Amino acid sequence: MEYKIGLIGCGTVGQGLLEILDRKSEHLRDAYDFEARLVAVSDKLKGSLLVPEGIDIRKLLGLLAEGKPISAYEDPKKPKYEVSDPLDMIEKTDADIIAELSYTDIKTGEPATGYIRKALRTGKHVVTSNKGPAALHYRDLADLARKNGLQFRIEGTVMSGTPVFHLCESGLAGNDIREVKGILNGTTNFILSKMEQDGMEYSDALALAQKLGYAEADPTADVEGFDALAKIVILSNVLLGGNVQTSEVQRTGISGISKIDVAAAKAAGFRYKLIARTVKRDGKIEASVSPQKLPLSDPLAGVMGAQNALTFDTDLMGKITIQGAGAGKIETGYSILSDMLAIHRCKKN
Amino acid sequence: MEYKIGLIGCGTVGQGLLEILDRKSEHLRDAYDFEARLVAVSDKLKGSLLVPEGIDIRKLLGLLAEGKPISAYEDPKKPKYEVSDPLDMIEKTDADIIAELSYTDIKTGEPATGYIRKALRTGKHVVTSNKGPAALHYRDLADLARKNGLQFRIEGTVMSGTPVFHLCESGLAGNDIREVKGILNGTTNFILSKMEQDGMEYSDALALAQKLGYAEADPTADVEGFDALAKIVILSNVLLGGNVQTSEVQRTGISGISKIDVAAAKAAGFRYKLIARTVKRDGKIEASVSPQKLPLSDPLAGVMGAQNALTFDTDLMGKITIQGAGAGKIETGYSILSDMLAIHRCKKN
Repeated sequence: MEYKIGLIGCGTVGQGLLEILDRKSEHLRDAYDFEARLVAVSDKLKGSLLVPEGIDIRKLLGLLAEGKPISAYEDPKKPKYEVSDPLDMIEKTDADIIAELSYTDIKTGEPATGYIRKALRTGKHVVTSNKGPAALHYRDLADLARKNGLQFRIEGTVMSGTPVFHLCESGLAGNDIREVKGILNGTTNFILSKMEQDGMEYSDALALAQKLGYAEADPTADVEGFDALAKIVILSNVLLGGNVQTSEVQRTGISGISKIDVAAAKAAGFRYKLIARTVKRDGKIEASVSPQKLPLSDPLAGVMGAQNALTFDTDLMGKITIQGAGAGKIETGYSILSDMLAIHRCKKN
Repeated sequence: MEYKIGLIGCGTVGQGLLEILDRKSEHLRDAYDFEARLVAVSDKLKGSLLVPEGIDIRKLLGLLAEGKPISAYEDPKKPKYEVSDPLDMIEKTDADIIAELSYTDIKTGEPATGYIRKALRTGKHVVTSNKGPAALHYRDLADLARKNGLQFRIEGTVMSGTPVFHLCESGLAGNDIREVKGILNGTTNFILSKMEQDGMEYSDALALAQKLGYAEADPTADVEGFDALAKIVILSNVLLGGNVQTSEVQRTGISGISKIDVAAAKAAGFRYKLIARTVKRDGKIEASVSPQKLPLSDPLAGVMGAQNALTFDTDLMGKITIQGAGAGKIETGYSILSDMLAIHRCKKN
């Protein structure tokens, strides 16, 4: 079964997805009866492209690698149409699925939310790894999708392609999820791991994280817990059925934690982790992000470096923990493929 | 959507399933549009029952709790028919799904395999937590199901209801799984944990496990690795596409490990675990069960007590680890429900 794909955003994640679609096309066709035809691409900085008969993914990746604009793409055999921007692309394409991979704005959710609404209104499924729309407008967007008989899928918004929503949707179906807690930010987990394992000061560990590309020049979103906050809001609203707003979440980052705090915790048999947690109590949902001293027996305590992990507390299965990558070009690119395959499973049955 | 269910085996797991179906019927109907009507039950020791209009689950659980035979069930409003044994029940019932929960014989796979074949030949989906048929005849039974347009599902054969096959089917779809390794036997993990944490001798830790009901009077199947072996054969054949026979698996148990070995490993920063492992190399699959000294940084090293865990090594997502219950009445009963919900998702879409 072939799906026409429209791609918004051609940065790291978009290129990761394209690499996977190129590398695994044969396997996906043979093992899953899934074929992707890339029909449109639009990136605010790199330009746009509409080729209904299908874009040669490898050729496009070559252009991007050379730093050329997307509009430089040429295929003498297949007509190419003018597109001005993502909204124009959504308007003009007959794609079945829009992969929304533009940049994240956690304060406004824009421009991604506008793209997603337009795609859902024009009959296209949407898959995204963008935390903005999911943290701010999940309920609205999921309702809009449902009304139009479409899917709005967001596996990549939490723990990249490590299965979180897929896990709960299928493997834990029928369970009541009472609590979700975990390590949802790799940068802070890397810093805390370095402070404990190598006795580094916070500032040195942060500088190392920046040097290795784990932390950005302005590390606020990670170290002050805003990134984990967006993710725990998403988990609250999708898995616990809440309607939690980002402003309601108690948040403390790790910048106040010293080498001495970490060493003292270690000496007492504990380990500092930045824990994002959401819990349902008497019908009310409470979400928080804060550094916690975990006993070493907690499955989350063993999660070191840039890894992420989540523990689900359920009524039938007790506690289930999943650990895996929390970021990465291929890992987040895969989250988009996994959501496309979920749409495909629904269509196929 | 209502499914008629035929149940074979009314021991711990069967009763766990019935408790869940009773307790969660409303939630399953409202949230998943799933309703189960129990139409037949057959247990070699406890008797059989065929009530096409539906058996009152709570009343049946009451009888079982009192130690009465299943045939003592009476409902003046709903006709009850004579059934002699599970094969006769499969013949006579019009169930949509057979839940096969009879006892496990890992050497012959019988009588469960015979029940499963008959059910698939008479047009019924089969879900089972029985390791015998899955370890010895997975390929055959899966082929038979496919030919008849049916499903043969086995979530409960490995790690009870902790999602293993569901995880790979949906959340990891598209990945090539290169290796699966983990802790698949709670009894041996409990014993090794006690030997390390409380400095117990193997024999004392085993006696404690027996006292607490984690180990059986004859503990051979657990401590010599036969239980883990059956599970790693299933994982080899289902997830890695192999055709591994139980006789091909290298197996070493934990009975040769002493308190001194465990203490020496601990002093060197390692921890003994009984590791079941299967790996694909140059198209060949090699499976083994043996005690391994893991570095404490391995996610499996932190899995203590009767918990189970598995690490999947994949081409796109790297390593993904899942940890959860490996046994239990409700936990294994849930595995059957989760497979029924998977059949339902396929029908519904």
